[in-house]
Amino acid sequence: MTIKTYITDTARKAREAFYQLAHVDSAAKNAALLRLADLIAQNETSLLEANVQDIAAAEQKGLSAALIDRLKITSSSLKNMCEGLQQIAALPDPVGEMDEFRLRPNGLKIGKMRVPLGVIGIIYEARPNVTIDAAALCLKSGNACVLRGGSEAFRCNMALAKLIQQALNETGLPEYAVCFVENTDRESVGAILQAVGLIDVIIPRGGKSLVARVSEQARVPVIKHLDGICHVYIDEFADKTKAIDIAMNAKTSRYGTCNTMETLLVHAARAAEILPELAQKYAEKNVELRGCLKTREILPNIVAATEEDWATEYLAPVLSIKIVDDFQAAVSHINQYGSHHTDSIVTENYTLANLFLRLIDSSSVMVNASTRFADGFEYGLGAEIGISTDRLHVRGPVGLHGLTSQKWIVLGDGQVRG
Amino acid sequence: MTIKTYITDTARKAREAFYQLAHVDSAAKNAALLRLADLIAQNETSLLEANVQDIAAAEQKGLSAALIDRLKITSSSLKNMCEGLQQIAALPDPVGEMDEFRLRPNGLKIGKMRVPLGVIGIIYEARPNVTIDAAALCLKSGNACVLRGGSEAFRCNMALAKLIQQALNETGLPEYAVCFVENTDRESVGAILQAVGLIDVIIPRGGKSLVARVSEQARVPVIKHLDGICHVYIDEFADKTKAIDIAMNAKTSRYGTCNTMETLLVHAARAAEILPELAQKYAEKNVELRGCLKTREILPNIVAATEEDWATEYLAPVLSIKIVDDFQAAVSHINQYGSHHTDSIVTENYTLANLFLRLIDSSSVMVNASTRFADGFEYGLGAEIGISTDRLHVRGPVGLHGLTSQKWIVLGDGQVRG
Repeated sequence: MTIKTYITDTARKAREAFYQLAHVDSAAKNAALLRLADLIAQNETSLLEANVQDIAAAEQKGLSAALIDRLKITSSSLKNMCEGLQQIAALPDPVGEMDEFRLRPNGLKIGKMRVPLGVIGIIYEARPNVTIDAAALCLKSGNACVLRGGSEAFRCNMALAKLIQQALNETGLPEYAVCFVENTDRESVGAILQAVGLIDVIIPRGGKSLVARVSEQARVPVIKHLDGICHVYIDEFADKTKAIDIAMNAKTSRYGTCNTMETLLVHAARAAEILPELAQKYAEKNVELRGCLKTREILPNIVAATEEDWATEYLAPVLSIKIVDDFQAAVSHINQYGSHHTDSIVTENYTLANLFLRLIDSSSVMVNASTRFADGFEYGLGAEIGISTDRLHVRGPVGLHGLTSQKWIVLGDGQVRG
Repeated sequence: MTIKTYITDTARKAREAFYQLAHVDSAAKNAALLRLADLIAQNETSLLEANVQDIAAAEQKGLSAALIDRLKITSSSLKNMCEGLQQIAALPDPVGEMDEFRLRPNGLKIGKMRVPLGVIGIIYEARPNVTIDAAALCLKSGNACVLRGGSEAFRCNMALAKLIQQALNETGLPEYAVCFVENTDRESVGAILQAVGLIDVIIPRGGKSLVARVSEQARVPVIKHLDGICHVYIDEFADKTKAIDIAMNAKTSRYGTCNTMETLLVHAARAAEILPELAQKYAEKNVELRGCLKTREILPNIVAATEEDWATEYLAPVLSIKIVDDFQAAVSHINQYGSHHTDSIVTENYTLANLFLRLIDSSSVMVNASTRFADGFEYGLGAEIGISTDRLHVRGPVGLHGLTSQKWIVLGDGQVRG
């Protein structure tokens, strides 16, 4: 069997399972999720053992320490998976929710019903917890899924996939509702990307090169996350304490996350007052600052920021700082150089706060809050399968609702069209 | 200037206009739409003259009568355009609507705001009214658009585009909010399809070959309409009168529309009672019937339906008929052979009606109503830019809401993440 045939067969089975899932109620889906949590807890030893083998193989192949770190699971990360499953089981089931009903003059009642997307392909790297998160979120939202994990986590993923199968079987759910691709050739990714009509949407989870390849080659629609070039703008009317707290938290609470601030904008009227104090705090955290011309008049010892800096996601203790002459200059900078991910204004001015919310073209727009809050758990979604930087379908953290869409429902009593 | 550069430049101007549109309120957008309606009424003579020239050129080129028919505008179609503009002006503006706010334990207020998609590329054929409909719906929903009409309607489209420019100028709106591509080479379509990062979504309006080309070649996300293989299922518990009325209306009220029924399914227990009467009525309308084996036992004079018939959108006075043994067989047939467009059950059974709504995987699912109602106007959207048969973002008739998405809004008072 060629890889293409194997993927096609797998997707067909997933599609059949998707239609079977339409008959499954919330209680049955929740039972499967809770059973899976039990099975993970019961099989801790063998899961950790599979992970040890993956790591040994990765070390032998000379993979980077960062990658091996992402690969690693512990007793505590297994506990997190179980808690995640319990949380997803406890969330309201979005499937079948009805909404927006209106009565038409001819007596038709027309509204919308929330429905799954269909078969979701998840292509991911390293972290084995994605296997559980993705399977659980897709199952709860009534979607079938085809999971294609990276070769480096193959043993651990396979061990998790077997437990998923067992949980589905034991609770009477269709066994192909979650399909794990037992092939780690690049070609299997290609076959998933081309499976028009069999796979309805692809969600890549991984580094930039993976996401770029998926975007470039997919013929199936993609929900993706690209850069997180997030801004904090300290406005003319900012509260100084809030400004400093937020600017510090948004940059230094974690460096490698997509919702970390990469560029700080400061209104010219407040720069001399706020920047020196901020610079000292950043220095204590060893954050490298790069500034525009005006910033360097206030902080003469920092490096000059280049045009490239404004468009860079550092994912590191580096921050570019720009002084802007007015509110509109901040808005224009963010919309031009940002990645439309998450941006925050610090201001006490009511009108400017509202204008910022309206004018900033990003998936999350904040007032007086750290960009680091842009996250499905923090937003109360219970869990997220990723953060979308796309404009269509769903923006920002993607939870259960993001894995569904709405069909139209028309209730008549014999109406025909004139 | 190459065609690619021309399209890139045009899309850049549209993107700038998109950001300017964020400053424009509903009243200004409505004023532009109403001014455009006035201008169309005032310029009736020159618009009809441009259309006459298009038609003469089309006849010289030997284009088909059907195409020339779609090309033609009259005094009455211009009146319809004006009325459409007035209706769109009267619709509520979706941009800025806030929704789903929740208070988080840390005091953050988190909700969603409805926002435009960005720059929308519309690629269309023949009908010049699409120029006005598309421009109006995009403008009202805060999107900039790049319109690429077909060569056969070029003169009339250009005349309409000039009026759009005039209306935008006179009401102080950004002139590039609506860009008309003054190039009818195939290459300009290709350049639009590849304009990743400049055009956010493409909506093709036209025949199957256009939509297929757009789907195949687009690197930008597409909202599209493919086949409309719609079903009516006459259930065991159908009211006979409703069943006959709906089956006749769904097939014969118009043959060439995407919401016309192409296959009729009848429960075995009711076939002998209902089919002969229906067959006679279809015969009066000269509808050719093609039946399954069991149907032909009841209607021996009709043609045998082949496997291909079940998957065919006739767009003609032809109907395939299948007798099914039970409800589930009807559901399975529709999900397998249908195009996930619009399907209707005729039944008096409450439980089966609800089950049908849930199990049918189509953009519109109906009970006791003709499939012909699947239409933005009939649904109360005021207008539609098309009907989506996609699964992501929007299903069914696409009105103003379908041209928007939602961003997250986070309102804090200094919160930082622990």
